[in-house]
Amino acid sequence: MGYADLPLDELRTYASSVTRPDDFDEFWRNTLKESREASWAPRLEKVDNRLTAVDTWDVTFAGFGGQPVKGWLHRPAGRGDEPLPGVVQYIGYTGGRGLPHERIGWALAGYAQLVMDTRAQGGDTQDSGEQGPGVPGYLTRGWESPQTHYYRRLITDAVLAVDVARGLDAVDADRLITTGISQGGGLAIAGGVLGEAQAVMADVPFLCDFPRAAWIATQLPYTELSTFLSRRRDAAGQLMNTLAYFDGVNFARSGGTMPTLFSVALMDRTCPPSTVYGAYNAWPGRKEIREWAYNDHEGGQAYQEIEQYDWLREFLGGGA
Amino acid sequence: MGYADLPLDELRTYASSVTRPDDFDEFWRNTLKESREASWAPRLEKVDNRLTAVDTWDVTFAGFGGQPVKGWLHRPAGRGDEPLPGVVQYIGYTGGRGLPHERIGWALAGYAQLVMDTRAQGGDTQDSGEQGPGVPGYLTRGWESPQTHYYRRLITDAVLAVDVARGLDAVDADRLITTGISQGGGLAIAGGVLGEAQAVMADVPFLCDFPRAAWIATQLPYTELSTFLSRRRDAAGQLMNTLAYFDGVNFARSGGTMPTLFSVALMDRTCPPSTVYGAYNAWPGRKEIREWAYNDHEGGQAYQEIEQYDWLREFLGGGA
Amino acid sequence: MGYADLPLDELRTYASSVTRPDDFDEFWRNTLKESREASWAPRLEKVDNRLTAVDTWDVTFAGFGGQPVKGWLHRPAGRGDEPLPGVVQYIGYTGGRGLPHERIGWALAGYAQLVMDTRAQGGDTQDSGEQGPGVPGYLTRGWESPQTHYYRRLITDAVLAVDVARGLDAVDADRLITTGISQGGGLAIAGGVLGEAQAVMADVPFLCDFPRAAWIATQLPYTELSTFLSRRRDAAGQLMNTLAYFDGVNFARSGGTMPTLFSVALMDRTCPPSTVYGAYNAWPGRKEIREWAYNDHEGGQAYQEIEQYDWLREFLGGGA
Amino acid sequence: MGYADLPLDELRTYASSVTRPDDFDEFWRNTLKESREASWAPRLEKVDNRLTAVDTWDVTFAGFGGQPVKGWLHRPAGRGDEPLPGVVQYIGYTGGRGLPHERIGWALAGYAQLVMDTRAQGGDTQDSGEQGPGVPGYLTRGWESPQTHYYRRLITDAVLAVDVARGLDAVDADRLITTGISQGGGLAIAGGVLGEAQAVMADVPFLCDFPRAAWIATQLPYTELSTFLSRRRDAAGQLMNTLAYFDGVNFARSGGTMPTLFSVALMDRTCPPSTVYGAYNAWPGRKEIREWAYNDHEGGQAYQEIEQYDWLREFLGGGA
Amino acid sequence: MGYADLPLDELRTYASSVTRPDDFDEFWRNTLKESREASWAPRLEKVDNRLTAVDTWDVTFAGFGGQPVKGWLHRPAGRGDEPLPGVVQYIGYTGGRGLPHERIGWALAGYAQLVMDTRAQGGDTQDSGEQGPGVPGYLTRGWESPQTHYYRRLITDAVLAVDVARGLDAVDADRLITTGISQGGGLAIAGGVLGEAQAVMADVPFLCDFPRAAWIATQLPYTELSTFLSRRRDAAGQLMNTLAYFDGVNFARSGGTMPTLFSVALMDRTCPPSTVYGAYNAWPGRKEIREWAYNDHEGGQAYQEIEQYDWLREFLGGGA
Amino acid sequence: MGYADLPLDELRTYASSVTRPDDFDEFWRNTLKESREASWAPRLEKVDNRLTAVDTWDVTFAGFGGQPVKGWLHRPAGRGDEPLPGVVQYIGYTGGRGLPHERIGWALAGYAQLVMDTRAQGGDTQDSGEQGPGVPGYLTRGWESPQTHYYRRLITDAVLAVDVARGLDAVDADRLITTGISQGGGLAIAGGVLGEAQAVMADVPFLCDFPRAAWIATQLPYTELSTFLSRRRDAAGQLMNTLAYFDGVNFARSGGTMPTLFSVALMDRTCPPSTVYGAYNAWPGRKEIREWAYNDHEGGQAYQEIEQYDWLREFLGGGA
Repeated sequence: MGYADLPLDELRTYASSVTRPDDFDEFWRNTLKESREASWAPRLEKVDNRLTAVDTWDVTFAGFGGQPVKGWLHRPAGRGDEPLPGVVQYIGYTGGRGLPHERIGWALAGYAQLVMDTRAQGGDTQDSGEQGPGVPGYLTRGWESPQTHYYRRLITDAVLAVDVARGLDAVDADRLITTGISQGGGLAIAGGVLGEAQAVMADVPFLCDFPRAAWIATQLPYTELSTFLSRRRDAAGQLMNTLAYFDGVNFARSGGTMPTLFSVALMDRTCPPSTVYGAYNAWPGRKEIREWAYNDHEGGQAYQEIEQYDWLREFLGGGA
Repeated sequence: MGYADLPLDELRTYASSVTRPDDFDEFWRNTLKESREASWAPRLEKVDNRLTAVDTWDVTFAGFGGQPVKGWLHRPAGRGDEPLPGVVQYIGYTGGRGLPHERIGWALAGYAQLVMDTRAQGGDTQDSGEQGPGVPGYLTRGWESPQTHYYRRLITDAVLAVDVARGLDAVDADRLITTGISQGGGLAIAGGVLGEAQAVMADVPFLCDFPRAAWIATQLPYTELSTFLSRRRDAAGQLMNTLAYFDGVNFARSGGTMPTLFSVALMDRTCPPSTVYGAYNAWPGRKEIREWAYNDHEGGQAYQEIEQYDWLREFLGGGA
Repeated sequence: MGYADLPLDELRTYASSVTRPDDFDEFWRNTLKESREASWAPRLEKVDNRLTAVDTWDVTFAGFGGQPVKGWLHRPAGRGDEPLPGVVQYIGYTGGRGLPHERIGWALAGYAQLVMDTRAQGGDTQDSGEQGPGVPGYLTRGWESPQTHYYRRLITDAVLAVDVARGLDAVDADRLITTGISQGGGLAIAGGVLGEAQAVMADVPFLCDFPRAAWIATQLPYTELSTFLSRRRDAAGQLMNTLAYFDGVNFARSGGTMPTLFSVALMDRTCPPSTVYGAYNAWPGRKEIREWAYNDHEGGQAYQEIEQYDWLREFLGGGA
Repeated sequence: MGYADLPLDELRTYASSVTRPDDFDEFWRNTLKESREASWAPRLEKVDNRLTAVDTWDVTFAGFGGQPVKGWLHRPAGRGDEPLPGVVQYIGYTGGRGLPHERIGWALAGYAQLVMDTRAQGGDTQDSGEQGPGVPGYLTRGWESPQTHYYRRLITDAVLAVDVARGLDAVDADRLITTGISQGGGLAIAGGVLGEAQAVMADVPFLCDFPRAAWIATQLPYTELSTFLSRRRDAAGQLMNTLAYFDGVNFARSGGTMPTLFSVALMDRTCPPSTVYGAYNAWPGRKEIREWAYNDHEGGQAYQEIEQYDWLREFLGGGA
Repeated sequence: MGYADLPLDELRTYASSVTRPDDFDEFWRNTLKESREASWAPRLEKVDNRLTAVDTWDVTFAGFGGQPVKGWLHRPAGRGDEPLPGVVQYIGYTGGRGLPHERIGWALAGYAQLVMDTRAQGGDTQDSGEQGPGVPGYLTRGWESPQTHYYRRLITDAVLAVDVARGLDAVDADRLITTGISQGGGLAIAGGVLGEAQAVMADVPFLCDFPRAAWIATQLPYTELSTFLSRRRDAAGQLMNTLAYFDGVNFARSGGTMPTLFSVALMDRTCPPSTVYGAYNAWPGRKEIREWAYNDHEGGQAYQEIEQYDWLREFLGGGA
Repeated sequence: MGYADLPLDELRTYASSVTRPDDFDEFWRNTLKESREASWAPRLEKVDNRLTAVDTWDVTFAGFGGQPVKGWLHRPAGRGDEPLPGVVQYIGYTGGRGLPHERIGWALAGYAQLVMDTRAQGGDTQDSGEQGPGVPGYLTRGWESPQTHYYRRLITDAVLAVDVARGLDAVDADRLITTGISQGGGLAIAGGVLGEAQAVMADVPFLCDFPRAAWIATQLPYTELSTFLSRRRDAAGQLMNTLAYFDGVNFARSGGTMPTLFSVALMDRTCPPSTVYGAYNAWPGRKEIREWAYNDHEGGQAYQEIEQYDWLREFLGGGA
């Protein structure tokens, strides 16, 4: 590997150049309002996950524009209907919710865990917006305007997943947080802030500081941006204007007093650390960050999980 | 490079294992019927291409389901309204129609040349079908059934582009052929066969012999298939069933008496030569193939263009 | 990727060329006898794994020559002292036992799960044999004779881990199996056969068919062999003679009536499928194998876990 | 990709460290004088280019030392003997003039276009100087002195091509410019300045700022320099002294009042942007540069062609 | 690595498809005759090699067409004028004779060692033939005919180096052999056979079986051939006809009763083993070959040196 | 390549951040004392090296803890028992002493040359300390403390090799220096300083400035450190504390008045130049460094050998 971003001291004080569109709040207020109006009650169906220690339900809920979005709800077995503090978890790029027994760590720690599937990526959920020109991947899908961009729909799903979790009997609505790794971390920031969760835990988040990411990234998926702009040589302004509505930096700026626990990997080639710090440094409230000095995009993995278990135990009184 | 496919003698007699679905003809008859019913008259608008030797029109025509598809129409300058023999040209993977002065070779040789844009790839055309889960790219988009697959829509566009060209005053409707390189070659086969052109010229065609391609390819885009199947480990049967409706081998089998000129690159890592021969060997009519022995996917380039100019000159009496 | 091993039909009947040393049984009988004589009672200490659904103990037991080896014992929480069917699990190359909450899948399914650390790899266990010349890695460490080779010590650890699990009150000694992925799969074969477990589940096993592996592998760690032999050009005979004592093919030949469930990835570049079939085809007893057609060394992952949960559920009556 | 050169603001004001040899002007005056004295009248032969819109002649003219150099002359068809403004075009590294129908864009826009072949590269022209030691490629061929270096001969060819174009009846001698991409851009600078064309259009030019190129380039062909110097460890001074006579920076300094249009690709790994700015910033006259922010060495391609068509239309009144 | 050529048993009986031109002998007879007529007496000058154990002379001799070629003559120090058996050594691709103390192994073993520089590669010798179009490197330089090809000149140098060594007082003219690695091995075959040395020792020789090399090689320098043919798509017949005059297979066929010691590396990616066996299997006389099973192009190195010292000790009575 | 470290002027004044442990001197004093107490007289056995110009003995001497370490002693042939100035030479990473005729350059120049084998690397010497967890390779072997680290044992071997050389009749004990390339260079610094040689010649030395190396290196073997720390995320402090006892920077600081000749390759990706300058700049005594500007880790090779021959000739009066 080898460290390859800003000098460490500049990194920790780096301020992203992303601007916040004047109608950022209005855009999201309207977007969420429309989708919430199209919403319907989630459907839950118990499934055989092969495990004795965890109960799992197949979840279908109303996402963007009322479109059905899939997910899994996991709870520790043998806890009846007792409301548990909730964790809404989002998935990394091109991944999906996977099989029922795959992501259950929060349930094992005593939380009600809602894992949201990612539309049109590797899971079980359709995306039905317009699909304009772009390069393979999702960053340039519908790039012409914030109205048509793929991430408008996906982030709306993420917020509505928080709504859904909050409404479940199985969840203690006053103790609800969002989390995720990479794209899941970007969605945790957006979904937690717009969905007004109690806290956000974002690991090596993607979807942050797009202008810098497009300029310095050397690996997929951020290079979708430079690949696209290397062909559509006249589109940089319009694309960056669109992406500003989905940039973790701008969601962080809206974080208010919400507490957060970030992680960053200093040798991250996929989500360069300056892009992560771009969002973290913009966060106005109580915040902590774990730096994994010698890690690439895998970040802290099990070490970070312990950081999160402990941070949340202290913060929420842990899983019940 | 280095040659890396079947021994040469086996290559030239290789028969693809792709099966032709029983309802293949019906599927396409219904698909085309519906889209033709949704069709509307093409719109042409003259543009400044900076060239004195070629006239260019921006074309918008009714593609799949009546959705608008873009293209360019090029003609040699100074020929008035004289009908010219026509060439419908399709574009390689992730490319689009480009700028007006980019692909004009057939116009320079005396043909009316219609360049079709590719929906949702690097051009100016939207795709508005359902977008199910898949890996980045187009081969697995809507993989669940032939009804929902991306290539149902794109191939329909390709056929309707032939309809459009045939209907233009500027084109001699009795002398109309399809052509293209890579994805463009796959579309030339499908569009020419379904659209009943006079001939097909397909260079290093993509979209041929999907089962073999998924099994041996080591490079994008065919590896979208193996990447997808490495995740959706239970989906191979369903995916291959879907792709059989879009496989150049099956269109070739429907080629009837139509003549064709193929090219194949023997060191092609992107479209391995056996997949190309899979389609070529299935072609029932008069056929010729140019083998470029030491070329990767770039194929014969300007050398192949001369082969085509000369073949078409003999076949159609050349451009007028 | 792209498939790159023997034609599929040859693969499934391929017989490894590995020979079984005349004193293979004697070598292992003596080795195990000596180490069992140096054995001492395992030490278990409860640890905080941050989870409410699983109980975990830090295990220290007597491995090769009485040397201390680490491990984790996991059980579903809230089951008191009830003996549960046992799973002994081994780890992939360069990995170690990890953190207490990392590998707990079998406990979640109702088994007592003993995860063995790997000496001198990425965990917490020392290796104290002689360390002769070799290339970085473990395959050539002590290559001069089977007496001094690293895998003599590690496989002995693996067998003694089965002894330890069998002796625990928390384990139903009549329902005990071994499992693992890659190096863990090779150890599961050796440890299960020598340790006389009830069954073996080996995924994409490493340590099988060394002569073929050295000859065809293009990736670490099998290329340690070709790298070593490219320098020590006179050592092939001696090295292969040594490795025959640790070859999964030879352990498989000793499998007797023991049932087994293998998995193989057909596009596996790390453990080429022929090397896996070399061991599988040598297995004399009841056997099944899952082929993951489009996977590299990651193999079936969560899909294979379901295969294993179901196979074991049927075979052992599942976890209790 | 990812941007990897000087910070943008430094880039735009960067001054190359290349020194101008005291006898630079004299060297070229003598070199050109000798070759002009050995010159003879060009031979033109009409060829079949398969196109109806363009007429093409095979050109043979006297290059360095009177050695024959090949080229193509293209004109829009049907323009009789009318003099047209002229464009002399040079070719990228290892390329040659290609087939007659390949590079005809300027003829299509109404210019007389002379495409010069590149001696000893991939075309039809011999090089007959001494061939001293060096690494494969052309940058170190004859490195011992400016008298023996390959680029002395090639640049002389480039200047004499301007002479030839100026002398043709088919060309308006008062409206003559040079152009080219990469090596062609470097030759356009040298050939335009020494040949006293009306303007120069250089795209992502090669052959600029050799000291910096040798120091920072990571890709062929500039790495021929570092490869050579990694072997001939004592040769850096002599090599750089020789190359100074062929450095685009030094030709730019001689540009006088001649106008120029450059292009630079900011993610260019082959011709790093600082080396291009090294030449551009040294240009004394009226100048413009197009920056392609997200492009590698492909640069602006069709987008840049439009910039050039428009710039030249304004500057020369366009092609006739 | 991984073995990647013909099955081993086929490899050892493989017969190259190279044909021997009818005028092969005549071509070389005339070529050598002309150059021998242009020859002049070699010049030797003692140099300071910093060593006390070896004496070294800078050699300049008449190569092709009387052009000066450089070399080093090494002898063990303190042996006065005593004639010693001689070894003529040739250098690998792009290398040169290097510094005086670099290649002295045969002198240390008691031989008079003449190291020939390679014209226009990384040494001190000029090449002054015509330099036609080609790709960077030497395999296609002057490809149009055997008369103009670079290797006509270099192989003539190699033969004349044998003449020179034979004529030196310091050499026992009746005990003279040629040797070299890679390109040096190819030259050792050609130079030894045409120069009528007593024996040839060729290690992992290059310049053998060009048709197969062009077809299967994946690495430089043989890929110069496929790269060239991928551009000059019409040139394969002419190029292969030219190369047949320089193919080690054809020189081997002329080996008569001369003994030879070859070496081959079975995992050689640069000179695939089948190309080496193509030459070896064609050798008519007494022959031995050392197979280095797990080596890439580095071959046997110091192990092969011992094989050669011992083979030559037995064959020639060793160095004196 | 391309230069990729600190700006040149910063490089030449760069000061490493490595701290010198308070007990550094004591640690080494005790370590050497213990091993010297366990020492025994070296065994020398004449071997057939196939050479007439050099005599070679197989050496076995007492290394760390009295463990046997192998080596070769070379002397120019025919010099009887005459004491010659001595050179102790160490070997690069993963290499061993090789075959008797491989590294003999110093003997050829008139020195008694002792080549030390490297324990547990590619030679003939065992390592018998504890082998704790780590990644493949040697940098993290026994990382838990300086007492258990592999390099404690290897550096002790290096010092005792100096002791052995000093004690040989064949060596002039007052003219003894250490040298080596890469790991051999790091050992030359440590062995020369602790062993109180007359001078040190270190080429592109490894084992210098571990904190910076771990942070910026992108290639093996330094990336063993970042790979290890990417897994053992809590171990950086402990690992760096251990490595400080083996860091060339700290040995350089102990160099006193000893003269030294370094070399550094400015494009060295394996041992980045700043890590080499980290040690060089810390050297207190008379010092010189040769910069090879365009070289990767191969450094100056034969050019540097001449620098060394000449420097030592001047310094020691050369080999006798």
